[in-house]
Amino acid sequence: MISESMKEQVAKSSVIRQMFEEGARLAQLYGAENVFDFSLGNPNVEAPASINESIIDIVNNTESVKLHGYMNNMGFPEVRKKIAESLNKKYNTHYDEINICMSVGAAGGMNAILKTILNPGEEVVVLAPYFGEYNGYVANHNGKLVTVPPNPPTFRPDTKALDKHITANTKAVIINTPNNPTGVIYSEDDIKKIAEVLKKKSEEYNTDIALVSDEPYRELAFEGIKVPFIPDYYDNTFICYSYSKSLSLPGERIGYIVISDKMKDADEVASALSVATRTLGFVNAPAIMQMVVAANLDAQVNLEAYDKNRKDLYGGLSDLGFECVYPEGAFYLFMKSPVESDKEFCEIAKRENILIVPGSAFGCPGYVRIAYCVSNDTIRNSMSGFEKISKSLGLS
Amino acid sequence: MISESMKEQVAKSSVIRQMFEEGARLAQLYGAENVFDFSLGNPNVEAPASINESIIDIVNNTESVKLHGYMNNMGFPEVRKKIAESLNKKYNTHYDEINICMSVGAAGGMNAILKTILNPGEEVVVLAPYFGEYNGYVANHNGKLVTVPPNPPTFRPDTKALDKHITANTKAVIINTPNNPTGVIYSEDDIKKIAEVLKKKSEEYNTDIALVSDEPYRELAFEGIKVPFIPDYYDNTFICYSYSKSLSLPGERIGYIVISDKMKDADEVASALSVATRTLGFVNAPAIMQMVVAANLDAQVNLEAYDKNRKDLYGGLSDLGFECVYPEGAFYLFMKSPVESDKEFCEIAKRENILIVPGSAFGCPGYVRIAYCVSNDTIRNSMSGFEKISKSLGLS
Repeated sequence: MISESMKEQVAKSSVIRQMFEEGARLAQLYGAENVFDFSLGNPNVEAPASINESIIDIVNNTESVKLHGYMNNMGFPEVRKKIAESLNKKYNTHYDEINICMSVGAAGGMNAILKTILNPGEEVVVLAPYFGEYNGYVANHNGKLVTVPPNPPTFRPDTKALDKHITANTKAVIINTPNNPTGVIYSEDDIKKIAEVLKKKSEEYNTDIALVSDEPYRELAFEGIKVPFIPDYYDNTFICYSYSKSLSLPGERIGYIVISDKMKDADEVASALSVATRTLGFVNAPAIMQMVVAANLDAQVNLEAYDKNRKDLYGGLSDLGFECVYPEGAFYLFMKSPVESDKEFCEIAKRENILIVPGSAFGCPGYVRIAYCVSNDTIRNSMSGFEKISKSLGLS
Repeated sequence: MISESMKEQVAKSSVIRQMFEEGARLAQLYGAENVFDFSLGNPNVEAPASINESIIDIVNNTESVKLHGYMNNMGFPEVRKKIAESLNKKYNTHYDEINICMSVGAAGGMNAILKTILNPGEEVVVLAPYFGEYNGYVANHNGKLVTVPPNPPTFRPDTKALDKHITANTKAVIINTPNNPTGVIYSEDDIKKIAEVLKKKSEEYNTDIALVSDEPYRELAFEGIKVPFIPDYYDNTFICYSYSKSLSLPGERIGYIVISDKMKDADEVASALSVATRTLGFVNAPAIMQMVVAANLDAQVNLEAYDKNRKDLYGGLSDLGFECVYPEGAFYLFMKSPVESDKEFCEIAKRENILIVPGSAFGCPGYVRIAYCVSNDTIRNSMSGFEKISKSLGLS
């Protein structure tokens, strides 16, 4: 009954699936408090209180047929306008509702964008390590994923390598900053260099290359580090934004796409995106959540909780002799595997009831990802396990 | 910037898009009360009051991280279990949570199912007239749509014609009952015959053919007509259900898929569906709405309002000499175009500020669809326009 390509995808996705099941099994055996599950990017920090207040307010004060009804495929015009105005204020842009398409999370947004632009066999370039789901998104629309190798130990974008991987057949480049899984934030200089490469290559091949900026972690930047606003540097930019992490609403599936007003054929692209989002089955983003985010454009989750986790985890692991990439944003720590195989290291960690994800899942073997969107207790209590591992491997 | 296939889809979808814009233009010119927009299937009947009560109750009494967080890709296990139990009670089935996958409406469900089962080039058979979006859904997954011609004037399924259109390459047959756009409900005898054809053909070709039952209108059946429960008649059945119409929640994007427990490899299919829904970007269905529908399994919209509309519209148009298919369910009336071209008739109607959709959009030229999910005033006030048309065409 199952298609060949899905059989393949199920087999590939079984690593994280097994980890999920293993986590549940271990929690049952040893008690949830004795299992240190760093495997998933599921925020443990609550949504701001204003979210639930808005839901109740909107339900009490909006006519039912309007509140729960269909609207334009791209979303409620007034919601899109509010988001456009909020971006204009923050980034000094000139967007209107036509530049904003509400999406079913960033995942839905990525699929809608790729469907809009990809012809079969066209290439989509990603910089490793990259979010593993991009493999599926690109395959959905018959594209070909092209991977720029990782650039350790800083994991800043290697723009010379990027240059070499762009061909006449490149339709898009996906970037993700703050980055999952490294926590690195691309600097203004990084973005300028990426934009230069794309401009040069577009001219050389006489093509239009889209820059797709996947930004679920935009607001999760520490120490006041500025996350550059990509459309300022490259015209053919789509932003794929999500409220999953910035407002701790991952289950609600709400985000938006920005179609830069400077993009070639911006209005036609918006029309096509509107059809793509419908045809893919999203139809429109969840109605009530559209209104909720529009009422919470300046709300924020408690970033300090993540920051404390970040410092405790980075400090603790570094002290134990582990080699970590310094995380500037998102809620992931990327760590060099102290044994050659990252998968083997994840097995070693599991013996201490510590669940982490091998870098191989992100196109970067030899490293592991530790998601610190967990309670601070989980981090502190995991340290004795990490210490045991460190000693057994002679790191400290 | 836009892909070739999307350019094509945008061009094709422009008929309904233009109608949408035309409706807004006419409303501005003549006042909304003087425009009779029967073009969209957007329920005008309010969601039951218990929906908003549940939203408030759930928000006030659920821990935020749980309420708005990620869960299993297939949805909250307890929600899926409740839906399974509700179906078991209603249809005497033996489902468990593994047989239920929460979906982002029926559109999301259809895409997830087709991605799960379709190999490139495999055929998906539909019976005209059919919901035009199936074209896009099947194309998304590189399938080939095969159309069984319409069967006027009753529009019951022509199972002999169906038989002829099934080949060794057929992977699925989509049915939709109560039907959009005809309002016809397939009888038990119809379903038995369809099941017989599929069983015979599966054996003949040694293939597994899925029957995909698209059921957003399941609860919208009038005069107590029973809508047969498809898995009772054919083992390899998926049901694609939506609360868009049954609870008037189209904007919220919430529904579910049933994977029949009698389906070949049912558990493996469920696993694959779980990956497909994630990879397509749905990830999971909107969290809060999952909990809301689970708390409203026995809730119903005001069916009497639709029934009154149905009677008034069918009666009124029949009296004016129009030839209508008797609508048994859903909220659509399918009417023979009194002039040869259905598109021309829609233009004639528009001159009276009446907006209806040509049957061509459903693979059935020569007919038009009138969506009566509107206020009863809209129906009554449109009658003078229909009368003018009837007289001008010599129908009465």
